[in-house]
Amino acid sequence: MYISETKMRVRYAETDRMNVVYHGNYAQYFEVGRVEAIRQLGLSYKDLEDSGTILPVIEWNAKFLRPARYDDLLTVRTTLSEWPTDHRLRFRQEVFNEEGKLLTVGDVLLYFMRSATMERAGMPKEMAEKLKPFFS
Amino acid sequence: MYISETKMRVRYAETDRMNVVYHGNYAQYFEVGRVEAIRQLGLSYKDLEDSGTILPVIEWNAKFLRPARYDDLLTVRTTLSEWPTDHRLRFRQEVFNEEGKLLTVGDVLLYFMRSATMERAGMPKEMAEKLKPFFS
Amino acid sequence: MYISETKMRVRYAETDRMNVVYHGNYAQYFEVGRVEAIRQLGLSYKDLEDSGTILPVIEWNAKFLRPARYDDLLTVRTTLSEWPTDHRLRFRQEVFNEEGKLLTVGDVLLYFMRSATMERAGMPKEMAEKLKPFFS
Amino acid sequence: MYISETKMRVRYAETDRMNVVYHGNYAQYFEVGRVEAIRQLGLSYKDLEDSGTILPVIEWNAKFLRPARYDDLLTVRTTLSEWPTDHRLRFRQEVFNEEGKLLTVGDVLLYFMRSATMERAGMPKEMAEKLKPFFS
Repeated sequence: MYISETKMRVRYAETDRMNVVYHGNYAQYFEVGRVEAIRQLGLSYKDLEDSGTILPVIEWNAKFLRPARYDDLLTVRTTLSEWPTDHRLRFRQEVFNEEGKLLTVGDVLLYFMRSATMERAGMPKEMAEKLKPFFS
Repeated sequence: MYISETKMRVRYAETDRMNVVYHGNYAQYFEVGRVEAIRQLGLSYKDLEDSGTILPVIEWNAKFLRPARYDDLLTVRTTLSEWPTDHRLRFRQEVFNEEGKLLTVGDVLLYFMRSATMERAGMPKEMAEKLKPFFS
Repeated sequence: MYISETKMRVRYAETDRMNVVYHGNYAQYFEVGRVEAIRQLGLSYKDLEDSGTILPVIEWNAKFLRPARYDDLLTVRTTLSEWPTDHRLRFRQEVFNEEGKLLTVGDVLLYFMRSATMERAGMPKEMAEKLKPFFS
Repeated sequence: MYISETKMRVRYAETDRMNVVYHGNYAQYFEVGRVEAIRQLGLSYKDLEDSGTILPVIEWNAKFLRPARYDDLLTVRTTLSEWPTDHRLRFRQEVFNEEGKLLTVGDVLLYFMRSATMERAGMPKEMAEKLKPFFS
């Protein structure tokens, strides 16, 4: 199991007239969580893309339990609990506020794809090597 | 069953560097679909809010089957297949491109809530009246 | 002089906790105004890009006079008052609400550029032909 | 003169199909720069709002000199060079990339307003006290 956490602060633009974070903006929070999870492994999602592997989002699911508000300092926890055996990569993602209350929980399914051919692919070798220690 | 359709065109800002619509932007497409579904009933979601009923999104789920691209004229189909018997309102939402291909399918759960107390509520009477003919 | 108008409705996501449209979202409103201005000429900005001419935004200026609110049906007026003699294309853009009140006024400078070389270019011939009748 | 800097990383959602940051997203970068400038003074913009003073954006101007790209770590520099003598607060804002190249430069005019009455106001006393040392 690989768990990563990253923090981000709610921007004014991300609130809506209900005075809370617009639900659609959690897609960006989750995205930042995944990208930083990969960076904390010692890799860069940008480098993965530049070397020919893209990771489009195929499914996105979330439950909104409590609202996030303007200027809240959020913690996004990104968990990879299963080793990806084929082209599928599934993350669990949770957003907490400063009091440690769980605001949003979701799971996101991505596919490894080769950008040149847009065909499904396996996990890139350098990513597998970095992840291996967390799954033994 | 109540089905509504509305069209919208993909904005430049909504694309990302993968040259497709960023997945998080479908939250807005679905939102516009629901708002127009309510307008086509002869109501206005804004009026509902102004008269004290809000409809926060509680769950949001989608599968991304095919990408939408810049300037595509999309059709969002919003379907209410079950009569809401308590505070829950669940829509199925589908996005099609001009060739009629299904790009994205999702379902969104909202709660009727009274904004003054932030307590769960039933469907407002004027909405029930407008919807009734579609469920008899 | 070439003037074009297009309508759009304020989305929930575009509002902020001040209960008005977040100022940064006018960039999208202006963009839709320009794209529809080009479409009303009988061209498509997407086709321009696909044939090798891009129009990046180089300067963006706006004054926010009155707020737009959720569900407002806005009119974006896009005006080209000077014939572009070199690589520069400058639009005046205005946003009105349903009562005809001016909410926002701005001007946007774009450059014609060849995407292959990222060098400045002149106006594409097919665009010049479509625009000529408005400047004689 | 008061100068503040803050860093932020370009999100995938903020890019567009030109493979650069969409120009409209600089409104958010500038906003984060201003909010962090206020926080570095020892204040919180959220607290200002909660105590009755809002700061709507009245004018927004920017020149886009060089593109920002996905995953770039940007520095936003926010400069207050003139002491606000009435309801006007004007910031100069600059965005630099990791090599120290200036990407975007702008200036943003905000008004101090009392949210209860929506009338123009002077700078709140606690803000004047924190800023005074930088203007003597």
